Amino acid sequence: MNYARALLREVEGYTPGEQPKDPGVIKLNTNENPYPPSPRVLEAVHALGPDALRKYPDPLAVRFRELCAARYGYPGADWVVVGNGMDELLAMALRGFVDPGDTVLATYPTYSLYEVLCQLHGASLKYVDLDNHFQLTEEFFRTPARLCFLTRPNAPSGVAVPREEVARFCEGFKGIVVLDEAYTDFADDNCMDFPTRFENVIVMRTFSKSFSLAGARIGVAVAQPELINEFLKIKDSYNMDVFSQAVGCAAMDDYDDMLARVAKVRYSREGLRNKLLALGFDVPESQSNFLLAHWKGVPTARELYQQLAARRILVRYFSARRLENALRITVGTGDECSALVTALKGILSR
Amino acid sequence: MNYARALLREVEGYTPGEQPKDPGVIKLNTNENPYPPSPRVLEAVHALGPDALRKYPDPLAVRFRELCAARYGYPGADWVVVGNGMDELLAMALRGFVDPGDTVLATYPTYSLYEVLCQLHGASLKYVDLDNHFQLTEEFFRTPARLCFLTRPNAPSGVAVPREEVARFCEGFKGIVVLDEAYTDFADDNCMDFPTRFENVIVMRTFSKSFSLAGARIGVAVAQPELINEFLKIKDSYNMDVFSQAVGCAAMDDYDDMLARVAKVRYSREGLRNKLLALGFDVPESQSNFLLAHWKGVPTARELYQQLAARRILVRYFSARRLENALRITVGTGDECSALVTALKGILSR
Repeated sequence: MNYARALLREVEGYTPGEQPKDPGVIKLNTNENPYPPSPRVLEAVHALGPDALRKYPDPLAVRFRELCAARYGYPGADWVVVGNGMDELLAMALRGFVDPGDTVLATYPTYSLYEVLCQLHGASLKYVDLDNHFQLTEEFFRTPARLCFLTRPNAPSGVAVPREEVARFCEGFKGIVVLDEAYTDFADDNCMDFPTRFENVIVMRTFSKSFSLAGARIGVAVAQPELINEFLKIKDSYNMDVFSQAVGCAAMDDYDDMLARVAKVRYSREGLRNKLLALGFDVPESQSNFLLAHWKGVPTARELYQQLAARRILVRYFSARRLENALRITVGTGDECSALVTALKGILSR
Repeated sequence: MNYARALLREVEGYTPGEQPKDPGVIKLNTNENPYPPSPRVLEAVHALGPDALRKYPDPLAVRFRELCAARYGYPGADWVVVGNGMDELLAMALRGFVDPGDTVLATYPTYSLYEVLCQLHGASLKYVDLDNHFQLTEEFFRTPARLCFLTRPNAPSGVAVPREEVARFCEGFKGIVVLDEAYTDFADDNCMDFPTRFENVIVMRTFSKSFSLAGARIGVAVAQPELINEFLKIKDSYNMDVFSQAVGCAAMDDYDDMLARVAKVRYSREGLRNKLLALGFDVPESQSNFLLAHWKGVPTARELYQQLAARRILVRYFSARRLENALRITVGTGDECSALVTALKGILSR
């Protein structure tokens, strides 16, 4: 007998990027940070004793939320909710603000998880294509929906829509706008002040990228307290364990360490982009920690991906519309970027 | 403007038990284990280096699921799914097997989170009262529903319905049966073998109680692979962080340590129950790590709760039908139990 809900029958779930066991692989496929996190993070974890494990964690993660509020320029913890990774917060946004059957708006392309989350929730995702420069179109501004997921900088292109365009959109949109700023620490500017200006905006951040903490699963959402209160109603009582709360606090306390790492990635990003351009790739300017490298010709982008994998260099290939001729390449260390360029030169010169 | 879903307007969310900052409080209110976890658990956490934090955790938590399968007598990881606490798995069961508008069955009383989860999901919870001995009634057997939450041992009574009764129910019920075995390690027997016998049964466990790991948020569900596959579709991609996976594996590797702690709690439980009976409380035999102590008279149970709190001893009081004359008391260390009994004697003799 089939006990599952009918809406799950066609759902395949989200496919995370490969996580190879082989430590010799150069991993440029999941947008992890190539540099280690602040040493204070592990110190904070090591300082936890048996009692921290034995007891329930703070269900409201007050200290961490207060640190986030202070850092992001908000008056208090009631403007902030934290989650077990930003993915949990994205799912909660649907559960809080979208009824099954409602329409959700997103650009195309964008973070492919949104589509899975909408399927699981029974919501209808309406994609509106970005233009050829990965900018918003007038159709996007005109499309009504209960909620909009807007990734800035966009994934997988790395392009950031101008702040004023985002503001114009938030002002005119009648539903909730989730501004997914997963990669914004690598950008020139951000929209973290928007919740003070717009009652319908939720800004989300992850600690997986700029803070080098993908293993700790930490997400943050900032919005007006009325919206945050809905998240608090629906979240699992103890959704952040004692480790993640300690890690999040320690990382926030050492914010400059994150900024220094981000500067290194931004520097490598420009170098790598120039080398890819020189090899003949078409690469939009990225405000993120990855590059979307378009390639037309033989071998195909898919074959490039496969031949790189054979040389133990993983990048991300999406067999999806507008992306089938591209590779998404995480900006690694200088050595990792050089190894990639050398491998590409070898493949392309054969 | 109100952006929230209409179904959330009357939801207050779940109220976790108090977590006082004062370290001098005797905390018998949230069913934590009074003894520390296996030392191997913290060793496993301390062994994690910067790379474990920098990279994404195993999205499928394969090693931990394999250890659970082996321990619980199942052929492989495909019979197991793990979560960020058992609460996450309970919510996922609704998302996987219940459509909004469907009926969910539970006994009354039971774990009060089920009601909140049903509200959030838009499902209709049908309570059927347990009898005066906290046993299932024929009405419960006759009530159809898409899914049933059955807590064994029951919370907050601590009473375990006989295994054969549970089997008879699972056999006749047409929907999914979630057997919530959060407290089963403290019981004489369990139903962990039921998924081999019944295609509609999901057994759930938490590491918060017997394993002394409430801070680490670890839940486990066991069922036939077809059901587990639905959980894998709907779970957050990386729902268990790198710490919890390491902690869960280490705890499973030191299973005997957990059993030794459980034996101590069971011993204290019998001693505390006898003392409460001698003081005039009515206390059903508990198969759990807490006792439901009924009290009729003056002061009322609520007043007892308040007067204990004034003496810095926290127990749990529920202002709910059938529970308004009772205290739920977590079995603490021998010293904590003695302090409670002394305080109760003092209050009752005034």
